[in-house]
Amino acid sequence: MGVPRLEGYYELTETTAIEYAKNTGFFEQSAALDCEEIGDGNLNYVFHIVERQSGISIIIKQALPYAKVVGESWPLTLHRATIESNALNVFAKFVPDFVPKVHFTDEVLALTVMEDLSEFTILREGLIQGNRYPKIPEHIGTYLAKTLFYTSDFGLNQQEKKELAGTFINPELCKITEDLVFTDPFYDKDTNDFEEALLEDVEAIWSNDVLKLEVAKLKKKFLTQGEALLHGDLHTGSVFVTADETKVIDPEFAFYGPIGFDVGQFLANLLLNALSLPKSEQAPILDDLNQTWDVFVNTFKTLWHEHNVEPYAEVNDYLNFTLTQILQDSLGFAGCELIRRTIGLAHVKDLDGIENDEVRIAAKRQALSLGRNLILQKEHITHPRYIRLY
Amino acid sequence: MGVPRLEGYYELTETTAIEYAKNTGFFEQSAALDCEEIGDGNLNYVFHIVERQSGISIIIKQALPYAKVVGESWPLTLHRATIESNALNVFAKFVPDFVPKVHFTDEVLALTVMEDLSEFTILREGLIQGNRYPKIPEHIGTYLAKTLFYTSDFGLNQQEKKELAGTFINPELCKITEDLVFTDPFYDKDTNDFEEALLEDVEAIWSNDVLKLEVAKLKKKFLTQGEALLHGDLHTGSVFVTADETKVIDPEFAFYGPIGFDVGQFLANLLLNALSLPKSEQAPILDDLNQTWDVFVNTFKTLWHEHNVEPYAEVNDYLNFTLTQILQDSLGFAGCELIRRTIGLAHVKDLDGIENDEVRIAAKRQALSLGRNLILQKEHITHPRYIRLY
Repeated sequence: MGVPRLEGYYELTETTAIEYAKNTGFFEQSAALDCEEIGDGNLNYVFHIVERQSGISIIIKQALPYAKVVGESWPLTLHRATIESNALNVFAKFVPDFVPKVHFTDEVLALTVMEDLSEFTILREGLIQGNRYPKIPEHIGTYLAKTLFYTSDFGLNQQEKKELAGTFINPELCKITEDLVFTDPFYDKDTNDFEEALLEDVEAIWSNDVLKLEVAKLKKKFLTQGEALLHGDLHTGSVFVTADETKVIDPEFAFYGPIGFDVGQFLANLLLNALSLPKSEQAPILDDLNQTWDVFVNTFKTLWHEHNVEPYAEVNDYLNFTLTQILQDSLGFAGCELIRRTIGLAHVKDLDGIENDEVRIAAKRQALSLGRNLILQKEHITHPRYIRLY
Repeated sequence: MGVPRLEGYYELTETTAIEYAKNTGFFEQSAALDCEEIGDGNLNYVFHIVERQSGISIIIKQALPYAKVVGESWPLTLHRATIESNALNVFAKFVPDFVPKVHFTDEVLALTVMEDLSEFTILREGLIQGNRYPKIPEHIGTYLAKTLFYTSDFGLNQQEKKELAGTFINPELCKITEDLVFTDPFYDKDTNDFEEALLEDVEAIWSNDVLKLEVAKLKKKFLTQGEALLHGDLHTGSVFVTADETKVIDPEFAFYGPIGFDVGQFLANLLLNALSLPKSEQAPILDDLNQTWDVFVNTFKTLWHEHNVEPYAEVNDYLNFTLTQILQDSLGFAGCELIRRTIGLAHVKDLDGIENDEVRIAAKRQALSLGRNLILQKEHITHPRYIRLY
């Protein structure tokens, strides 16, 4: 992409991360610190630093100038570290409880020093282990409504919104989504990755022009429709949980896009988890999904009536129209996410982790079918509770 | 808007404009120059400078830090001069024949030295005088198709498009449109300006919630839908013509917005001219309108097939869907333009210049009715030729 590496940038190691933490004054020079790189990541280092005596800990997250997933050959802008910390700071204004606290940001080293959440569990992992997180619908529904409403033309002065949008222009990270979510899975591309047993299903997608027209329209919304500051990658791997707390992390894909994209990605990842379970165990996940939507809608409605800056907000039916549009977009984007997580480059452990071949293939086939149905039937589904998994 | 005046800025006079033209080397220090400020303008000075001996001439267009229309009390960013010259330079890549040549730009003085078009006539004035400009449909249809296609995600690398969009963030000028086109005319606002005889018609608009919901949706498209680099103010007063040549000037409102906005504003201003004429004389204007659309569509189709960078471009029906969406948007935006030019702050001479009170009021009433119909019926009009003026 031709974005040059910043002068002065170097990759931290566990040793230099400790030095950095001391030199920036976060810990005393004499402090005894332990450091571990805990990133699962293909894009970043995540250093967990703990002071032995006090137990005080921080995270240093550093962006790498390439995507590890395909080796060093895929360069990736370091500016995403700035995007991420800026986004966390914006979201902290509206949902301080649901984002990690940013201590400070170093644009040269493309790193952010932030609250240590290593006591938290990644929601995807927790769900796969069969844990229940009853606060999720309330927390994520509220997170979505507040971050998306308050950064939109309904919740933010429309001139300030344009200036803010300008600071979140994020071409390289958006391109990853444009390619890996909206394009490659619908064409016979090298980036795709699926089991031989799915070939017939996949070819049916590739040759379905009615489906592809709808995906083209959704992709165009992603490319052009700057409604709100999105997280941009809001799957269940971007959510940290405990029994009581929820933190949405990693908004390095943040940009001004369609509201339904964040909502839809989250819903899709709950659906992917549900599909990984026996039918008899799916109900709680689907309940979470429905409740997340209900909390989103109710919170959005309250914000609309109480904090709207748009004079047309009180016009009869404008709120209903807006919510209907968000739902339809969300369902469409969820459909794309289901398909790409099944046959595209980046899979989910929920499905890939099913050990029995027959069960796994059946679940993936169902994910493809559900994805297709959501995309094609999005105008006719008036609430997520009417989503039929089979 | 709180944008500070740039250090070093001063307003040129006819005398200092001559000095400027010499000091910047455009003319010899010894040249005998005549200078006249010829702006009609409420926002800018336009100095016409001619060297007596050679007849060589230039235009210096300087942005003023306020809107004259309401006195010095309405400050307006000088950055619009940079936006305008940048937009002219972008458009010149695609339609060099249809924009004035920019010689150079001075960001401190917020001025652009450009090709002298003082031999040209403003299209609106020419139409009001009853002149015919047979090249207009070909020229404007081509201008619209090329500038809008090549700056969209269909005609431009999608990453470059995002960077380009970032350089055309234009909150203050967009706000003028948001207020004066999309909001104020539909509410009882002080900025509105209409004759007492129209009060009943105007109140019918203000109380029409079905209409206002559609206007709200159109405004939202204007606020959020960054499809292409728009001119942003493409009425017949922004078009210079001779019998053979057409130049689209003044893109200081340029920003990334919905394609239909440029198309619709131009169509609306032809409709306003048609409505100012006796019915028996309207046909040629309506022919121009229909042909402009046809040229736009045919050129856009050719560009789509030959220069599209979007893999989905060849999906069955995507082009048709896109053109249908552009038409519907154009009709809706045209409807807003008809209404705001009749009862909002900025009128058009086509209608205001009708001397006979009864005829003028009737024409304005018709403009309001047509505007409302276009907004409400936009999904059902499949070609501009089906627009019914009465």
